[in-house]
Amino acid sequence: MGERNGKAVVCLSGGMDSCVCAALAEASHSSVYFLHGDYGQRTESAERERFHALADHFDAAGRLVCDLRHLATIGGSSLTDPAIQVSDAELDSENIPSSYVPFRNAHFLAVAVSWAEVLGARSIYLGAVEQDSSGYPDCRREFYDTFEKVVALGTRPETRIRIVTPLIELKKSEIVRLGVDLGAPFQLTWSCYRSGDLACGTCDSCALRLRAFHEAGIEDPIPYRR
Amino acid sequence: MGERNGKAVVCLSGGMDSCVCAALAEASHSSVYFLHGDYGQRTESAERERFHALADHFDAAGRLVCDLRHLATIGGSSLTDPAIQVSDAELDSENIPSSYVPFRNAHFLAVAVSWAEVLGARSIYLGAVEQDSSGYPDCRREFYDTFEKVVALGTRPETRIRIVTPLIELKKSEIVRLGVDLGAPFQLTWSCYRSGDLACGTCDSCALRLRAFHEAGIEDPIPYRR
Repeated sequence: MGERNGKAVVCLSGGMDSCVCAALAEASHSSVYFLHGDYGQRTESAERERFHALADHFDAAGRLVCDLRHLATIGGSSLTDPAIQVSDAELDSENIPSSYVPFRNAHFLAVAVSWAEVLGARSIYLGAVEQDSSGYPDCRREFYDTFEKVVALGTRPETRIRIVTPLIELKKSEIVRLGVDLGAPFQLTWSCYRSGDLACGTCDSCALRLRAFHEAGIEDPIPYRR
Repeated sequence: MGERNGKAVVCLSGGMDSCVCAALAEASHSSVYFLHGDYGQRTESAERERFHALADHFDAAGRLVCDLRHLATIGGSSLTDPAIQVSDAELDSENIPSSYVPFRNAHFLAVAVSWAEVLGARSIYLGAVEQDSSGYPDCRREFYDTFEKVVALGTRPETRIRIVTPLIELKKSEIVRLGVDLGAPFQLTWSCYRSGDLACGTCDSCALRLRAFHEAGIEDPIPYRR
């Protein structure tokens, strides 16, 4: 892997993309700091359990679970508002799905930047996927490129922080293959939007994951309801 | 005031700048929604009390206090870390003061944007002051201009949100005069960084406030320890 960089902060939902993202960060940094956000999402207890399992697996030098439950108070998403149903996937739709949590990834980035500035970490990893994704606006490359400019403007003059989104242009099936190559522990991850118990197999997130493993010709190690 | 716009979200610390900012927002919008962040700052209980008093005064259509105490866990600021002393003001220094909370204003903006998107509010008001301020990097006009681009990229295509920082180029004394013209209730505000009881008069924030009222030739209606 050549010379290892210093510290990296890794935003980690506990899903497959953030797991592969963590494996990439861990391979090129001397220490990794794992960040997870509780935004009142339906499956938070499952996600948080996986977050800690992944932090153990990757031997994180620090871990931070932040309370972003004001996102659930604000609402507007099927992930946080029980009155909005989690719809079955429409993978080829141009519409922004009901699971979009308004501006959510900006909250993760804000916390990651504050933490990175105090730690002296120069990289923030986030497993956003643009090409082959649900179509969330805060998963686009331009969003991260512009956010990086905001970071340069809004922190100390000597602070240098890159926002690294190594998966953003990959197809989900390529992320599966990359994860297998890196030895990423997919068995520890959680992707389902509906349930924290047994993955439903039909929500946006399950459908994207299942299609990715299928296209990669690899068996998904987690069990599904159907 | 001419035609009034729709809804505005106002970020409100409870200090003099955010109070004047709220008065401006209230004068030009049919309804105002007040947002306050608890980031574990020393004087949060005083700030929160003033936030609610100001929300009552301006008849806010909604109010949201969000938990950003992970900023205190992260630390790096005299406002959140009891081990770092709140220094006396050095108003002409070029250094970033110890009271800088890393990237704090990005956290307020992230919450404000999520809330504004769900409410359908098109304006976010924030009382940042660049010219005559403590020199925080996240109080610069460029930071807000670039953040506005991030908002356009990271929200639904139909969402239009402006970040309005009407005080950013004003001197603090001009803000006092503007507030007096608008009938802003300065007696309800809190600025001190050190104490939640009786303002110290010597920290950065008190020193800036006192100088502003002095230069404006107006008596500050709140009591001071010295």
